[in-house]
Amino acid sequence: MSITGDQSLLKQINRMALVRAIRQQAGLSRADLAKLTGLTRSTVSLLCQDLINEGWLVEHEIQATGALGRRPTPLAIDPLRLALIGADLGVDGLHVVATSLNGEILASRSEAIVGNDAAMVLERLARMLSEEALSLRMQGRGLLGIGVGLPGGVDEAAGTLKFAPNLGWRDVAIREPLGAALARVGLDDVPIHVHNEADVAALGEFEFGEGEVPEPLIFVSLGIGVGAGIVAGARLFVGANGFAGEVGHTILKVDGPLCSCGRHGCAEAFIGLNAISARIAPGLSLAAIRTQLDFGDERALAVVGEAGRALGVLIQNLWTLFNPGRIVLGGPSCALGDAFLSAAFARLARYTEEAGLPGPDLRITRFGPLAVAVGAAALVLHKTIRPV
Amino acid sequence: MSITGDQSLLKQINRMALVRAIRQQAGLSRADLAKLTGLTRSTVSLLCQDLINEGWLVEHEIQATGALGRRPTPLAIDPLRLALIGADLGVDGLHVVATSLNGEILASRSEAIVGNDAAMVLERLARMLSEEALSLRMQGRGLLGIGVGLPGGVDEAAGTLKFAPNLGWRDVAIREPLGAALARVGLDDVPIHVHNEADVAALGEFEFGEGEVPEPLIFVSLGIGVGAGIVAGARLFVGANGFAGEVGHTILKVDGPLCSCGRHGCAEAFIGLNAISARIAPGLSLAAIRTQLDFGDERALAVVGEAGRALGVLIQNLWTLFNPGRIVLGGPSCALGDAFLSAAFARLARYTEEAGLPGPDLRITRFGPLAVAVGAAALVLHKTIRPV
Repeated sequence: MSITGDQSLLKQINRMALVRAIRQQAGLSRADLAKLTGLTRSTVSLLCQDLINEGWLVEHEIQATGALGRRPTPLAIDPLRLALIGADLGVDGLHVVATSLNGEILASRSEAIVGNDAAMVLERLARMLSEEALSLRMQGRGLLGIGVGLPGGVDEAAGTLKFAPNLGWRDVAIREPLGAALARVGLDDVPIHVHNEADVAALGEFEFGEGEVPEPLIFVSLGIGVGAGIVAGARLFVGANGFAGEVGHTILKVDGPLCSCGRHGCAEAFIGLNAISARIAPGLSLAAIRTQLDFGDERALAVVGEAGRALGVLIQNLWTLFNPGRIVLGGPSCALGDAFLSAAFARLARYTEEAGLPGPDLRITRFGPLAVAVGAAALVLHKTIRPV
Repeated sequence: MSITGDQSLLKQINRMALVRAIRQQAGLSRADLAKLTGLTRSTVSLLCQDLINEGWLVEHEIQATGALGRRPTPLAIDPLRLALIGADLGVDGLHVVATSLNGEILASRSEAIVGNDAAMVLERLARMLSEEALSLRMQGRGLLGIGVGLPGGVDEAAGTLKFAPNLGWRDVAIREPLGAALARVGLDDVPIHVHNEADVAALGEFEFGEGEVPEPLIFVSLGIGVGAGIVAGARLFVGANGFAGEVGHTILKVDGPLCSCGRHGCAEAFIGLNAISARIAPGLSLAAIRTQLDFGDERALAVVGEAGRALGVLIQNLWTLFNPGRIVLGGPSCALGDAFLSAAFARLARYTEEAGLPGPDLRITRFGPLAVAVGAAALVLHKTIRPV
């Protein structure tokens, strides 16, 4: 519908259009912004002054030149005054990061999860979050909000985790208990956003990518579960019920091995960490598999290579269906290294050669094991700078 | 960027917001529209008067009631004064339809293609289009534009067909020669839009669907080629280079049979019409296969059933990756009937049962062999009513 009806929304849309323009091209002046956005020069000036006061923007030094007259002042995103907090409530542990508006990691803390009692885990996460938030406050930084990435289906509006098979959690409220715990230490004004882990990791690559990030962007999360987050049109592509990107449950082999979902031949039954360890020695940890690979264990190399080739097929299928501008791989299984990833890249290269096509822009996340936590921080930014 | 800069664009955005609102809910009054859109009552009245004058809207009779005072006048899309033309330049022939703004088919004409000389085919298509356009003019209908669905990759902005493997065409200008031919008969003011056949068919299901159409919507086009058009967020999802939805070239079986694309094990090598006929008797036409099926030929039934099961796997994978609100099947291979489609549905049902999940909203296009032509008409409407 028309967006001229709601003046405060319209103002926020225009403010954030300025922020996005400057994120895309640092050094724009108010005059540049007026030209780019179609807003009047005086509106731009007013909005910029607000954004500077609030910590979003900073005026750069005016460059001294030989030319006469006043030079327009270049504006940039202020990396110092506002911050974002992101959390990864993962099967392997809790990770919390604080980042600047540009995605630089300011601080990070991690703790292993012992047991999987939801109330206890959330209490510990709340403590980690409040410590980080209070630390930012002591540094004089403003906090835009807290994002939380969760290993399962999420009801974003309700703030609940619907189902996390690998934690054994079902219908667990997340936002409400975290908000209550933060309120008890005086942090009752901090917005909390929750979303699926692969989705937030995709947002991390998108919002904190260098330069203009090509779209669609797909983040493939490789671990016990195999999922994908998809960004298209600067928005998460989540499908009709929020389940889009369940790439681990596409069929890679008709009548193949039984998957945890009850079907046969799903990608996860070839690529998932449990499927890999089950074929080497049931119950083997990721670290133990990694050690076997390092020592050249033939069985481990064969099994992991086979999983890597299946990953190559999976990437081929994602590439063919979504025509992504970029694919980013992340998640714990990336630690399997070359034995896994080179096999995937070789299989993918064979498909591109056979079809005579260039390969996709494919990379490993530069945020490593913090990809979900950084993505959860990006979720806060995403919700703020893209208000409609 | 801000949309307040360009007044004529803003006006068109607001006009079309009214049209979309009334398409969604016929019978809204000007007061309802003002409330819905946030536009002032006087702006709504001015824009509605324009839309009535131009043939978009019609005022319904005011219902006589016992209540006192003037009742608000209900508005509806006018099915009588404006029309759309859609064309399907397909491997199997040329189809042209005229439709109302609501997608009712007003007229259709089809001709077989003899030879595949591009200039000659386009000349014949131009003649069919101009006959239809002049026929509409004689009926006093206004023509919003012409859409053309093409069996391959399309450069929408340039109006060219980049590559159509099954026609053997590469880099063929479409819009320019059609426009020139139409100009010669006085139709030089008609906008022409071109797009891929599966994409326009998806738009046909989306823009002309009954009630609110669930999203994402995927149209799977089944013929010699196997492709998909995807609508998400009321827009075509086309990917980074316009190739999204190439579902026929996802891998269904690692190291499977050779596909026309050079890879091995692609879905098209199992489900494509040429792959099916090659397994029964090379060169067999669709009609001949259909006859064999009707006569209970065991080999034909077995081959088509096998292809149908592969289609079931394909739909499962599309459903898992995109979480579509609706999947629509269309294209010539639908004529293979139950032997093909029931096998697909049964395979899909097995996956949903095994996972304990409800099945997708899956249907066959109600436009039959005209699905692409009707979709091409919908492309014109789509471009007009969604200006940004």
